[in-house]
Amino acid sequence: MNIGPYSFDEFIEKIKVFHGSIAPGIVAGGIMVDIARANLPQGEFFDVICESQHCLPDAVQLLTQCTIGNRWLKIVDTSRYALTFYNKYTGEGIRVYLDAKKLQEWPAVRAWFLKEKPKKDQEQQQILNEFRRAGTSIYSTAKVTVKPSYITSPGKKRSSIGLCPSCAEAYRTDLGETCPACQGKGPYL
Amino acid sequence: MNIGPYSFDEFIEKIKVFHGSIAPGIVAGGIMVDIARANLPQGEFFDVICESQHCLPDAVQLLTQCTIGNRWLKIVDTSRYALTFYNKYTGEGIRVYLDAKKLQEWPAVRAWFLKEKPKKDQEQQQILNEFRRAGTSIYSTAKVTVKPSYITSPGKKRSSIGLCPSCAEAYRTDLGETCPACQGKGPYL
Repeated sequence: MNIGPYSFDEFIEKIKVFHGSIAPGIVAGGIMVDIARANLPQGEFFDVICESQHCLPDAVQLLTQCTIGNRWLKIVDTSRYALTFYNKYTGEGIRVYLDAKKLQEWPAVRAWFLKEKPKKDQEQQQILNEFRRAGTSIYSTAKVTVKPSYITSPGKKRSSIGLCPSCAEAYRTDLGETCPACQGKGPYL
Repeated sequence: MNIGPYSFDEFIEKIKVFHGSIAPGIVAGGIMVDIARANLPQGEFFDVICESQHCLPDAVQLLTQCTIGNRWLKIVDTSRYALTFYNKYTGEGIRVYLDAKKLQEWPAVRAWFLKEKPKKDQEQQQILNEFRRAGTSIYSTAKVTVKPSYITSPGKKRSSIGLCPSCAEAYRTDLGETCPACQGKGPYL
């Protein structure tokens, strides 16, 4: 099977280079991207939501022009292994998820997905082989509409930038009198 | 000047392919990655925090093995244009930021950074030329220690996975009796 413009094995190589290791979750993610695309109207502009921070966003970044830095890819972490491609103006889209109910015949994928065994006891090659053989059969889809906060509204006001009176760095002034870091929300001790 | 293993112009091409457009912020981000690296002990394992969701994470993903999907890259959105490379076990690191105080001689960068003009009135080529000529002179650095929640602790317990009694999808059971989406925290209407 192919994943995006790549053969299965080429995609594995792409994963290794970008992600630093062959994560089976990105293989699943690549297949999910293809399913989402096949279910979208041709030529439509879409944004993507990933419901997991793990692996899935890298599949989207490898196979689409949606990245975390251009914000066409958003992460809304529900911890479910699902992604949604949606029309960025109407919010209508297609959600694709790895379906735990469809894994009876795929023990290695099941053990990986549900963490039934410690990582060290899992056979990566077996998981990859099962993903390849299972093709698109272990995923489900649903039509969804995303909440308005994820929709691009053409009249949206640009936020203005000012210097934080506390740290003197530039920040979005709609976030408060000082920047979020000086409000105690930064990552440092 | 070079950015990572690329010439300035090669890096611009890399940005176009990955990010979908030539975002000046990623050029700045690339230079910031190089400054951070130059200030880190050789051969140390590091994680990265970006303090902005805009552009900066894509510079890190283009130039390091830290991606949003392997979680070596984290976004803690303070809206400041800063990134931190830190030792993932001790939390000690180096923070690099585009310094608004150093932009007097760089009007195009300043207008872009502080959003002094609408985007359509800004000259992309002029911004890029100023970034190239300014080199590393418009950034500042500080030693920081990140909060314990961003540190990798070897003894950390694996979360277990169960099926949500409401939607029947797999989720991390430490997040509640049902998955976050069924608790109302999902992205859908």
